Amino acid sequence: MDWEQVFASRTSRMKASEIRELLKLLDQPDIISFAGGIPDPALFPKKEFEQAFASIFASGESDTALQYSVSEGYKPLRQWLVNEMGKIGVPCDIDNILITSGSQQALDYLGKLFLSPNDTALVNWPTYLGALGAFNAYEPQYDRLIANGNRSADDYKQQAAEQGGKVKFAYMSVDFANPTGETIDANERKNILKLAEELDIAIIEDAAYQALRYDGEAHAPILAVEIQQKGSIEDCRTLYCGSFSKTLAPGLRVGWICAAKSVITRLVLMKQASDLHSSTINQMAIYKVAKDHFETHVPKIRDVYKSRRDKMLVELEKHMPKTVRWSQPEGGMFVWLTLPDGMDGAELLAKSLETQRVAFVPGKAFFADGSGANTIRLNFSRPDHATIEEGISRLGKLMKEAV
Amino acid sequence: MDWEQVFASRTSRMKASEIRELLKLLDQPDIISFAGGIPDPALFPKKEFEQAFASIFASGESDTALQYSVSEGYKPLRQWLVNEMGKIGVPCDIDNILITSGSQQALDYLGKLFLSPNDTALVNWPTYLGALGAFNAYEPQYDRLIANGNRSADDYKQQAAEQGGKVKFAYMSVDFANPTGETIDANERKNILKLAEELDIAIIEDAAYQALRYDGEAHAPILAVEIQQKGSIEDCRTLYCGSFSKTLAPGLRVGWICAAKSVITRLVLMKQASDLHSSTINQMAIYKVAKDHFETHVPKIRDVYKSRRDKMLVELEKHMPKTVRWSQPEGGMFVWLTLPDGMDGAELLAKSLETQRVAFVPGKAFFADGSGANTIRLNFSRPDHATIEEGISRLGKLMKEAV
Repeated sequence: MDWEQVFASRTSRMKASEIRELLKLLDQPDIISFAGGIPDPALFPKKEFEQAFASIFASGESDTALQYSVSEGYKPLRQWLVNEMGKIGVPCDIDNILITSGSQQALDYLGKLFLSPNDTALVNWPTYLGALGAFNAYEPQYDRLIANGNRSADDYKQQAAEQGGKVKFAYMSVDFANPTGETIDANERKNILKLAEELDIAIIEDAAYQALRYDGEAHAPILAVEIQQKGSIEDCRTLYCGSFSKTLAPGLRVGWICAAKSVITRLVLMKQASDLHSSTINQMAIYKVAKDHFETHVPKIRDVYKSRRDKMLVELEKHMPKTVRWSQPEGGMFVWLTLPDGMDGAELLAKSLETQRVAFVPGKAFFADGSGANTIRLNFSRPDHATIEEGISRLGKLMKEAV
Repeated sequence: MDWEQVFASRTSRMKASEIRELLKLLDQPDIISFAGGIPDPALFPKKEFEQAFASIFASGESDTALQYSVSEGYKPLRQWLVNEMGKIGVPCDIDNILITSGSQQALDYLGKLFLSPNDTALVNWPTYLGALGAFNAYEPQYDRLIANGNRSADDYKQQAAEQGGKVKFAYMSVDFANPTGETIDANERKNILKLAEELDIAIIEDAAYQALRYDGEAHAPILAVEIQQKGSIEDCRTLYCGSFSKTLAPGLRVGWICAAKSVITRLVLMKQASDLHSSTINQMAIYKVAKDHFETHVPKIRDVYKSRRDKMLVELEKHMPKTVRWSQPEGGMFVWLTLPDGMDGAELLAKSLETQRVAFVPGKAFFADGSGANTIRLNFSRPDHATIEEGISRLGKLMKEAV
């Protein structure tokens, strides 16, 4: 059978993620990997999850835990999130929260909600690869989000019209972004809001790394800034996407969207039609662990990752040639390196795997326009100090040969 | 903000499921409900799941269970499914299996894979409401699947072209379908295959209820019939969707697609972009329970549901007026009633809730063309014998007044 003739046009946009394909090759034990973007499993609250699952069965909640449940999500978890959102300046109620299967699903749903083919999504150059992957299924065009006033709303609108659609939303990872590690500051957040107002579009605020700040002062979420301006979440255009993957555990696939009810209502219908609901038992387990341990557990993760970030920055300083620059992340999991013009991250990776046995992610895939060949992403959440020391030293050697 | 101006055109097709909305109203304890479509939680293998989750933590598998995992799904579970599929005439290997978050997600993904706006999906009149919900997001047209030779392939093609697209697949629930309880027999399965060959389209074989046969002889899945004709699953156009929701537990959201590798490869990319993977820990727990208990557990469920089906058929015979007809399901969870022409299932429900306090689902929502007002669906998997006796008796009273 010739499948191509029955596939929808969107399938031509679905490509294998370079990162995930790469990760499959990294099983060899002698490779030092800065390529991942995953938490250190040594930091998972295993005892706490063990108790949570056990108590679901011991307490007679298992009929509920194993049964179908409502698309909106498990009520006590949504209520817990209402309180958490309140702490970061987002007063809301339970009907402003939808539980998703990780924040990746939130991005998929929001792409599905807004994008008709050839509509424009505004994204950073570079941006989270998984967001591009999720949105691509809905066949958008991309334009570069620049909110410093250098590009007018009219200019964006005209570009989008020329591409055959409308600007629908601006997407950005706000804190210690994947891949750059950079944070959008308070002033930029206001500028993004202003541009979105002028364009009358939604803002998708990806806050997956929000809790992983190691130093510097936290900035209010864009949604919090907007609520301050407008008085109520119901009048806000910002859709906040959160996740438990970086704080508790990714394997349970639990995240959330916090937004105006008029949007949540639509997303609930979408979830109903797409997978009915996220795993009931996992939502219950996440709730139990979050309720009793979130506040004490997250600082422990922060301590470990902070020291690894510090170690990586020190080693980069020690080993990198002067022509290589890198970000100074205040949190998250990544440092972003910019190599001299003309150097190619993918070629460097091939050479690195061959001669130094060090893996990382070439940065090009994070750029919606295919630029950024001279960038690479390093992960510091997974390797320990000794590995960072050895790996960055080897990488420095390679770089010095290459430049 | 005026959200409508930024929503994608597909959102106009997203409507609240009447059934799910209805279920929310059924919390009142004095209502006898035949409206659900959910397993009886008394039959969940709770002890087995309790042990499975406990052993994941006790055996040191929790690092894996709580971590990100591959989009294809947990290997031992896929291997177990390879063996199960072999038992029902589908020789395949691990790369023919994708784990999904319930078979609802399989339907969403297959809609997404095949349907561009105005393409045609062939479905039964009536068909599974959740399939229409999943497909609607991709803005298809529907045409009625009639595989008895009364409509030619050319006729289907012409109809689809007039609607602005192509016929992409035929979807059907093959065993004890939701909502009708009816089974597609061996001859019909061959006819569907023949029509699909002529149209050169995919077949989506929804086998969610496959294991719940109470009497009569099992028919080979369409996929098995096609493999017999062609020699290998790789040459087959049939995509088989299975689920653990009706046999083990729906709350963990684990299902699967079994199909040619050329399709599975595409679906893996889709899953990567839409939610990365299904819950790792749930796949591991389902694997443990399935491996050790599937064969002994499923017959227990069958015994209970069979006796409830028998009870419902006896009571219908006793209480329904002669002008009402109903299906004789060989398995599954539903009996389908056809009322005299001119009677309206939705009006009957309103009256029933008011005067008899008995709930069921009006059948109209299951018809892609909006016909079928004189049908209703009754569930027999959830109510016990006494409830069935009392509920059908009340319903009979109501019917006799109404006809």
